[in-house]
Amino acid sequence: MARGRFITFEGGEGAGKSTQLQRLVARLEAQGHEVVATREPGGSPGAESIRDLVLRGDADRWSPVTETLLMYASRRDHIERVIRPALARGAWVVCDRFADSTRAYQGAAGGTDPELIKALEVHILEDTRPDLTLVFDLPTDVGLARAHARAGAEMRFESKGMAFHERLRASFLAIARAEPERCAVIDAAGSLDAVETQVWETVAERLAVHG
Amino acid sequence: MARGRFITFEGGEGAGKSTQLQRLVARLEAQGHEVVATREPGGSPGAESIRDLVLRGDADRWSPVTETLLMYASRRDHIERVIRPALARGAWVVCDRFADSTRAYQGAAGGTDPELIKALEVHILEDTRPDLTLVFDLPTDVGLARAHARAGAEMRFESKGMAFHERLRASFLAIARAEPERCAVIDAAGSLDAVETQVWETVAERLAVHG
Repeated sequence: MARGRFITFEGGEGAGKSTQLQRLVARLEAQGHEVVATREPGGSPGAESIRDLVLRGDADRWSPVTETLLMYASRRDHIERVIRPALARGAWVVCDRFADSTRAYQGAAGGTDPELIKALEVHILEDTRPDLTLVFDLPTDVGLARAHARAGAEMRFESKGMAFHERLRASFLAIARAEPERCAVIDAAGSLDAVETQVWETVAERLAVHG
Repeated sequence: MARGRFITFEGGEGAGKSTQLQRLVARLEAQGHEVVATREPGGSPGAESIRDLVLRGDADRWSPVTETLLMYASRRDHIERVIRPALARGAWVVCDRFADSTRAYQGAAGGTDPELIKALEVHILEDTRPDLTLVFDLPTDVGLARAHARAGAEMRFESKGMAFHERLRASFLAIARAEPERCAVIDAAGSLDAVETQVWETVAERLAVHG
């Protein structure tokens, strides 16, 4: 059995990642793939319990460094119990946020030393790296307006102010520029259908899916 | 104000660390020091909530690597919110378990890559290293018998079998041999009063306390 493919969705708030993820999963399943749709932080029972701990309470309950460690603890559990077994049995894994979100949120925007994050990527991800990362990009004010309009949105990061979110956006774009073979930027400002088409064309081209 | 002193108590189960810690704290306070008595995992509200997450559930709920990250997340919170502020104001900090327990439990006995643990020590502890570490040593069977006799003992690690605990003991002794300037081995097999005297004489000699 060939190893499955690992696709991650990244980007700031309000970029429509969750909706597009569902649409991509439906298209891949329609082609006969087993698809595991998952998210971070969370994605396994242990990782979800760490997620609850991270997202509960005040925005400054955890320092960026402590938050980085909690994110990587949850990521490790998710990798060991969900992602690796799925890829090993040939399933495709599509994950809403992964390691790039730690680089952007806790790293570039939060101030955690990039050397710590790099060491965690080496020791914790090991060879579990995305085959393709879609970076959903849109102007910061548009994304925040969309996130605020969402009922029941998790407001922990949304409340951090425009400068924080500008740093986030710049960080995701810098990751995409630095690793063009792995990453593709998706213009998330269009209609849901237009973005869906962009996503599908990118996946088809990069991962040789015949749509 | 001179920085305070940082003393850690390490060793396997049933070595009497908690009792001896209380006695040392009383002696230091009697000399007029402000003393912060604390423990790991835990020691700050955030770290205690991570402790609850780590120690709850089955012994194999978390892999050794995930557990290492959770321990370091709780340690970082404890360092930032309790240990560093206390040392900075001149208090002495006496902590029941610290970084050596991760080396021994998750590392030597659990199989976590020592390179990951070393990277975490560099980035997470930074310069917050113990001035003195007392390694409480006693034969594994004696320690386990004492731990089992304790009412309400936390049995997560006690249940792991003799070979695990032999590796723990060997690991703590190896740490003490490798870093003799920081560490001292305490023979924990004697009476409470005899161990207390050994602890006090060691602290007095190593940290120039006049008893």
